[in-house]
Amino acid sequence: MSESFDAVDVICHKRDHHELSDDEIRWVVDAYTRGAVAEEQMSALAMAVLLNGMTRREISTWTAAMIASGERMDFSGLSRPTADKHSTGGVGDKITLPLAPLVAVFGVAVPQLSGRGLGHTGGTLDKLESVAGWQATLSNEAMMRQLEDVGAVICAAGSGLAPADKKLYALRDVTGTVESIPLIASSIMSKKIAEGTGALVLDVKVGSGAFMKSREDATELARTMVDLGTDAGVTTVALLTDMSTPLGLTAGNALEVRESLEVLAGGGPQDVVELTVRLAEEMLEAAGRGGQDVRAALTDGRAMDVWRAMISAQGGDPDAPLPVARHTQDVLAPTDGVVTRLDAYGVGVVAWRLGAGRARKEDPVQAGAGVELHVKPGATVRAGERLMTLHTDTPDRFARAEEALEGAVVVAPEGSRPDAGPVVIDRIA
Amino acid sequence: MSESFDAVDVICHKRDHHELSDDEIRWVVDAYTRGAVAEEQMSALAMAVLLNGMTRREISTWTAAMIASGERMDFSGLSRPTADKHSTGGVGDKITLPLAPLVAVFGVAVPQLSGRGLGHTGGTLDKLESVAGWQATLSNEAMMRQLEDVGAVICAAGSGLAPADKKLYALRDVTGTVESIPLIASSIMSKKIAEGTGALVLDVKVGSGAFMKSREDATELARTMVDLGTDAGVTTVALLTDMSTPLGLTAGNALEVRESLEVLAGGGPQDVVELTVRLAEEMLEAAGRGGQDVRAALTDGRAMDVWRAMISAQGGDPDAPLPVARHTQDVLAPTDGVVTRLDAYGVGVVAWRLGAGRARKEDPVQAGAGVELHVKPGATVRAGERLMTLHTDTPDRFARAEEALEGAVVVAPEGSRPDAGPVVIDRIA
Repeated sequence: MSESFDAVDVICHKRDHHELSDDEIRWVVDAYTRGAVAEEQMSALAMAVLLNGMTRREISTWTAAMIASGERMDFSGLSRPTADKHSTGGVGDKITLPLAPLVAVFGVAVPQLSGRGLGHTGGTLDKLESVAGWQATLSNEAMMRQLEDVGAVICAAGSGLAPADKKLYALRDVTGTVESIPLIASSIMSKKIAEGTGALVLDVKVGSGAFMKSREDATELARTMVDLGTDAGVTTVALLTDMSTPLGLTAGNALEVRESLEVLAGGGPQDVVELTVRLAEEMLEAAGRGGQDVRAALTDGRAMDVWRAMISAQGGDPDAPLPVARHTQDVLAPTDGVVTRLDAYGVGVVAWRLGAGRARKEDPVQAGAGVELHVKPGATVRAGERLMTLHTDTPDRFARAEEALEGAVVVAPEGSRPDAGPVVIDRIA
Repeated sequence: MSESFDAVDVICHKRDHHELSDDEIRWVVDAYTRGAVAEEQMSALAMAVLLNGMTRREISTWTAAMIASGERMDFSGLSRPTADKHSTGGVGDKITLPLAPLVAVFGVAVPQLSGRGLGHTGGTLDKLESVAGWQATLSNEAMMRQLEDVGAVICAAGSGLAPADKKLYALRDVTGTVESIPLIASSIMSKKIAEGTGALVLDVKVGSGAFMKSREDATELARTMVDLGTDAGVTTVALLTDMSTPLGLTAGNALEVRESLEVLAGGGPQDVVELTVRLAEEMLEAAGRGGQDVRAALTDGRAMDVWRAMISAQGGDPDAPLPVARHTQDVLAPTDGVVTRLDAYGVGVVAWRLGAGRARKEDPVQAGAGVELHVKPGATVRAGERLMTLHTDTPDRFARAEEALEGAVVVAPEGSRPDAGPVVIDRIA
């Protein structure tokens, strides 16, 4: 009876297309975190938000309330500026692995708090755990020391950051209320702002393998997140990038680490290199250290040196051989022609079914499982040539995995044009 | 894992404006009743239904699924046809009390399964419990016997009827998902159809004291319910009736029983008599016994005889004096003039605050509390003349009760016209 608002009134306001007041939003987020607003009340409110939307002010207050539900990190004691990157998730998106050490080369600290994979997109922590000995969990003190000494940390987010978001995210997942731009934006940005980074570059994916399938939705999400960051005093920029086809030539945990090491050694697939360099430039610019020759640090070994130090600092052995799946199976071109389509979502589902991803949070992942592509859209192939190789420890998974390729790979008559565009589609600041 | 559907898929279909299939609806209602669909999932679905609607087929299947969740009564063994009445609830709506015995006079059995009051509208069971000894709960066998012998029963609905509705109604109440015409219609009709009546007359209230404030919404609700009844093989008719001002001159449990006895004795307020007679005519017509002089049974004592038998059969003493509140306070006309407004909602809230209603299901009610009106809209009054008398056992309630009269009673200069129309506004069949 000492609550300032009634949950049903707040739900009805949003349901009836009214704008919620700052006090209503602060109360409902806090009361939900405390358990005074029930799960079934918050899910009804989330559905009303999904269907009726929120204004920029409502989203900003909602995000601030989620940040206020927990602790907030503070990197102001570091001798270096900080910059972070967040990707909305895609297939073969291993960019964080070469990017964090690359940015650190230029004196900007990268506190990259990451997550695990769920569904058809991989998780950065799952990928790094294929490096022998590497530990995802760090104390705040160890994290600070590593940021000061090495300049880059990729680790698990502590449970103290935005607990309201954690609770709400789990609820949205089971109530059909994930696909709301205001709720997605506030979920991502509450964690990123609570992490205390000074600058933030968002990689908003668009295409079949991304959460946002249309450029219009991706632009709206990017604009919403840039506004939220800016309103909270974090220099924030977003790139809209293509996720109609996988990034690079691998999707799967150890396979993606291998490809990241190729990039850090100055090689690697052109799209991965291009996006890594472009994101590094944006992060350095946002942190006030722009205008440097980023690409050189990949070819001259400086980024690799930071990678080795970063892995070692978290107990990993940078020289240990990476896990390899026990079984492989090739997928061959059915005819001569041009690869016009290599669908990101299809390849993501194949990698997931091979064991690279999880269906439920508690499922284990296979380090070696995944998909290795031998071609990219636009390649000319001969009948019987290898298009991709499937990797798994459990060969009974091949059949189900191959089903997901149905329609995802198209080899068309020579002269056909592929469905492919540039990696970076737009920039929103 | 043996479920036929996934709750999130069903929620997303409705959220994304798709029509749910019959199988989806049957599954989700059944799985919710079993607990396999969680409360937070059903509340998200209810909000999506509220905002995106349901088609006639969806509502019909949803209602059938709620009926199928429990037992169904069967009156086909009775020697008389059956007819029931349901009111969507209003202030001073005591019509069931004189109506059930009146219809029974003409050889039609009335199995009136009723509820308790919540909020500003009263409940039939609460009213009858002000009669000494009267019991709301009857076994199915006792109910059948009373229908055969007396012809009318007013009792509590057993918990076996439409348990899905019971669970869903409690959830909607706390999640801002009450105000959905498809959900209101299916809730009412699932119980009424499960009760097994052969004919059903709906009294759909419209106005400030009713759930439906606009004629448009009330018409849509009436049409939806008539369609549901017809689809289920029950002869169903709806009257749209006015609830902008209270029905009769009393709102409160024992006060309304007293007024009902006046009607059964051939007197009583004109609007209560008119609506009772009209609903009785509709019920008799729907049960195949139309064309009789209904009003005569009020003036010649036949309806009163059935009332006495009905009360006695459930342990009540029809001759016991009715409870009277310990304290009263008059509300006087501030000036000379015409009563142009006597707002049903305002009067309902006053009666509720005086102790006639409950805020929570578990609250007790005062039998004697309520409002007694001395005038109706259109009456000419002198300054200082009594407009109404407030009744309560707890006089500290008077101040809060009077606050609710603010703006609810208007005395305007002589010659002004009241905001009042006919009791029966429309008929939908």
